Amino acid sequence: MTPPPSLRIEPIPGYSPTIGRLVGMLTYSRSTTLAAVQGVTMAQLDHLHDERSNSIGALLAHICVVEQSYQVLTFEDRPLSPEENERWATALTLGESGRLTLRERPLEHYVEQLTAVRQKTLDGLAARDDAWLEQAVSPAPRINAHWAWFHVAEDEINHRGQIRWLRSRLP
Amino acid sequence: MTPPPSLRIEPIPGYSPTIGRLVGMLTYSRSTTLAAVQGVTMAQLDHLHDERSNSIGALLAHICVVEQSYQVLTFEDRPLSPEENERWATALTLGESGRLTLRERPLEHYVEQLTAVRQKTLDGLAARDDAWLEQAVSPAPRINAHWAWFHVAEDEINHRGQIRWLRSRLP
Repeated sequence: MTPPPSLRIEPIPGYSPTIGRLVGMLTYSRSTTLAAVQGVTMAQLDHLHDERSNSIGALLAHICVVEQSYQVLTFEDRPLSPEENERWATALTLGESGRLTLRERPLEHYVEQLTAVRQKTLDGLAARDDAWLEQAVSPAPRINAHWAWFHVAEDEINHRGQIRWLRSRLP
Repeated sequence: MTPPPSLRIEPIPGYSPTIGRLVGMLTYSRSTTLAAVQGVTMAQLDHLHDERSNSIGALLAHICVVEQSYQVLTFEDRPLSPEENERWATALTLGESGRLTLRERPLEHYVEQLTAVRQKTLDGLAARDDAWLEQAVSPAPRINAHWAWFHVAEDEINHRGQIRWLRSRLP
C-alpha cells in the first residue's frame, strides 16, 4: 500500500529546506496523477476521445519526458542533444505522431517509467541546495531551477486535469 | 499591457521569503489561466462541449470560489459559514446546477472577480510570515497553510488544462 500523500508542504529530511518544500509539491502532484489512472486498462490508455485528442497513455508518456528534459536542463546544464530530441520529440509534442505510436503499453509500463524518472529527480534534488535552486538554468537563462521544477509539476497537473476529463468519458 | 510573467521562483519584496516563492507560483499559474481565456466571447464562455461538461465560464467561477474558500479557511481560521456554503456551492461543486446558472456573464466579469479575490489573497499573504505558512490550518488540521495555497494553484492549473482542451474544440 502506498501511504496517503502528505497534505503539508514543509522541509523534508534529506533535502535542503526550500528543495524539500518543492519535493512535497512534486510528490503530491504525482500522487494525484497516479490516482487519476489507477486501474485503467491498455485499451483505455490507448483510447482517442476524438480525432484531435491525445490518449491518456500519451499524456503519461508526455509527463515522463517533460521531467526527463528538465533533468537534462537543470542537472546536466545543457540543452537536449539531437539524439534526445529525436527520441523524446513524439511524447514532448504529442499530436498526430503520438496518436500513431504512443500505444499498446500497459499501465505498469508508464508507472515504472514515471517512477524511475522521478527517482532520478529526487536523487538530483537531494544532491543540491537552496542556492542552486534559485540560480538561472544555464541553457535557458530566463528561468531559474525553482521555476523549472515548479513547471514540471504544473505541466503534470495541467495534463492530469485533462486525464480526469478524458477518463470520465471513456466508452 | 500586462508584463510577461516571471519565469523565476524566488523571494519577492513585500512578502516573507517562502511566501514570496509561493506568490510567484500563484501569479505564474494565474497568468496562464488568463492567457488561456484571452478573447473568448460570452457565447464561448457558456458553451457546453457535451451534456456533462462544465463551461469555460463555470470553470473560471470555480477557480474564484476555491480561492475564496481557502481565504476563509486560512486567513479567518474557520470553516465556511452556512451562508458562504450556500452562495458558493454551485461554483464549488459544478455539474448540473452550474450548467444551468453559471451563464451569461462576459469575460470581464470573471476577470474582475478573479482579480479582486487575488488581491485579497496577496494582501493576506503579505500580512503573514513563513512560520504561519507552515502551521496547520485550524479548521482542517491535516493540511498546513502552505499546502492549502499550493492546492489553490494546483486546482486552478488542473482546470486550466481542461479550459485549454475545451477552448481548442469550441465550435
